[in-house]
Amino acid sequence: MPPSHKTDRQAAGVTAPLGFRAAGMHCGIKKPGMFDLTLVVSDQPGPIAGVFTNNQVVAAPVIVDRYHLRHGVGRAILVNSGNANACTGQPGLMSAIRTASRLARALGVPTHQVFVGSTGVIGRRLPVEKIVRALPQLLSKLSGRGGMAAARGIMTTDLRPKTVAVRGRINGALVTIGGMAKGSGMIHPNMATMLGYVTTDAVIGRAALQRALTEAVNESFNCISVDGDTSTNDTVLCLANGLARNRTIQPGTAGYRRFLTLLTEACRTLALSICRDGEGVTKVVCIEVGGARTPAQARQIAQTIGTSNLVKTALFGEDANWGRVMAAIGRAGVPLDPSKVTVSFGGVPMVKKGCGLGLAAEARIAKVFRRKEFTITVGLGQGRHRAHLWTTDLSFDYVRINASYRS
Amino acid sequence: MPPSHKTDRQAAGVTAPLGFRAAGMHCGIKKPGMFDLTLVVSDQPGPIAGVFTNNQVVAAPVIVDRYHLRHGVGRAILVNSGNANACTGQPGLMSAIRTASRLARALGVPTHQVFVGSTGVIGRRLPVEKIVRALPQLLSKLSGRGGMAAARGIMTTDLRPKTVAVRGRINGALVTIGGMAKGSGMIHPNMATMLGYVTTDAVIGRAALQRALTEAVNESFNCISVDGDTSTNDTVLCLANGLARNRTIQPGTAGYRRFLTLLTEACRTLALSICRDGEGVTKVVCIEVGGARTPAQARQIAQTIGTSNLVKTALFGEDANWGRVMAAIGRAGVPLDPSKVTVSFGGVPMVKKGCGLGLAAEARIAKVFRRKEFTITVGLGQGRHRAHLWTTDLSFDYVRINASYRS
Repeated sequence: MPPSHKTDRQAAGVTAPLGFRAAGMHCGIKKPGMFDLTLVVSDQPGPIAGVFTNNQVVAAPVIVDRYHLRHGVGRAILVNSGNANACTGQPGLMSAIRTASRLARALGVPTHQVFVGSTGVIGRRLPVEKIVRALPQLLSKLSGRGGMAAARGIMTTDLRPKTVAVRGRINGALVTIGGMAKGSGMIHPNMATMLGYVTTDAVIGRAALQRALTEAVNESFNCISVDGDTSTNDTVLCLANGLARNRTIQPGTAGYRRFLTLLTEACRTLALSICRDGEGVTKVVCIEVGGARTPAQARQIAQTIGTSNLVKTALFGEDANWGRVMAAIGRAGVPLDPSKVTVSFGGVPMVKKGCGLGLAAEARIAKVFRRKEFTITVGLGQGRHRAHLWTTDLSFDYVRINASYRS
Repeated sequence: MPPSHKTDRQAAGVTAPLGFRAAGMHCGIKKPGMFDLTLVVSDQPGPIAGVFTNNQVVAAPVIVDRYHLRHGVGRAILVNSGNANACTGQPGLMSAIRTASRLARALGVPTHQVFVGSTGVIGRRLPVEKIVRALPQLLSKLSGRGGMAAARGIMTTDLRPKTVAVRGRINGALVTIGGMAKGSGMIHPNMATMLGYVTTDAVIGRAALQRALTEAVNESFNCISVDGDTSTNDTVLCLANGLARNRTIQPGTAGYRRFLTLLTEACRTLALSICRDGEGVTKVVCIEVGGARTPAQARQIAQTIGTSNLVKTALFGEDANWGRVMAAIGRAGVPLDPSKVTVSFGGVPMVKKGCGLGLAAEARIAKVFRRKEFTITVGLGQGRHRAHLWTTDLSFDYVRINASYRS
């Protein structure tokens, strides 16, 4: 896992690349004093890419963003927290469109260059007037140092704002990628809305940008997620304004691979921040599954382990109950020969040929369970495919936070 | 849901039908004073049916029982708690066989007429000598009033022993069905071992018995379960000794249907007892999904709602957060038109055409959420198929119990 260092540059978040300004403020959706509205604006329009929830019940802003994405050009991103604008029907859709078009008019750009996001309680009407009334003030707050305020404006149960910035030379110029995310509800986007917004000053075509974002999300946000198992609002957008003036990044070139590496690093840092800041999280555990016949089977087993409440409570209790991992492997729906399965915890072998290695091994892995972060490695012994997934424990605080989310 | 009345007859459990004796005792696997060994014996051999876990990592006793079931005749059931004898490899299998054969010798019956069960911690060697040494005393305790002691001997984190007995006239005779079960770890067999043992004095062929048990389990234990989503040890056995002297129950007859109804009632009572006694359970909620294109799709949606940690924590917190139910419906992987979805809580409509019905409706369902038991009804509006599932809340106590199961 990458280190969780926080530098000034990282704190700049979405405003780290050239030509991006951002702001966050309180507009009246959440309790007084809490930021609930965020704006990111690029000095010039550029290609934009998006990855959205697989949920069939989608929030109004997701419908709007998917529609705007067909034009492929972005200029601004407007996000509110405290209200998800989901299950709100036609009126909710009109509200989302209205906020986008009012902002577009204020900026003097086409409405389809404005992207919107919402996160919070499902099923309540969006207080659209509060947002519209706040727009002039929000625009006046826009600043090249506004990345952290913007990250605050999209938080719900998050304890900390989550920002990132990475930088590298690509095709003759210094390219910067910045980003912010929110997400909590344990670790899984299916458990609460996950939003990620990434900005870059790279010169890159729209198709290449979309391809890179999809690949990066698969290696980051989707490794803390369950495929097809997402909330009504999950969204990751990436806007590239081209101000770095590098030679255009073309798919299949060394420049593309360098960009993809940077983008993946940014997304992974944000994804792990979501894990570490998860609701009531005391442990972050990486589950690595190898020796599978297909990547999908490896993923399926990693996800069954990583979503087992019995495994998660054992992590919280620091109880080296490896039998629960074995039970999860067996019920994942993947054909396997249990007598070929190996499992180790933090590199310490505990299961070989499907059998436990005894009390001495248990005593050694008990020490591993006391660490804040460690890896559970599963070998299936039937192929060469791998997958990994980050998961967290299930704690008292998770129950406390989610039992009274709306009160 | 059937009432949870406890009569003397119900307390008789597996010893309620004619010709069954049972016993439970402490043999030294669990802490002193706690029953950890159970025996049920029929006065005469009879057909036996079984339904087992779908988990590919299966415990040794499941392997033994499946093997013995090929003979189809049962006489005795021996179950220990405190140790699951799972992930114990060849030695564990030998231990299971040894306990079965030692009991068979003591009873003077073929080994394949003895069925064994284990529940408890995975991956520890079964202390087989403790069981073997206890057999003489266990046999001496066998009694026609031993049903409750037997139910105690199979408990793990269960708070209460679970027994049932039902009776009805079938094919010219009074037929009794008795049973006991253990299971906790919330409600799902995938979360902890679920064991169910059903006895009857009915005269019925082996094929008819197996068919009836499979049908009854699908309408009871599998409605508190996730298909294919079971522990390493889950087992339901039904032994019929024929002492009621009814005319043989033949498939497709009124007598069969009457038997099936009784058997289903017995299994459902046990299954609901497991729910109500679930680890840290404060709510038991029935999720009914209708209007689906196929039964599998209805089940899939019921299970996605019923296993959502966000739904479960909302139940615990009595937070009428119906948006979480909508989000679960949308991510269940079933193609649907959200604008046709209806949802009601305890009969009170909350969602119509995919939209929330407002704060007045929310105030009404908030009262429903304060009940200990209620129904969530989902209409998909796309077909005529239905499914139901019982689920429970996710409470502080669930985390507490499972975080320190082995300490």
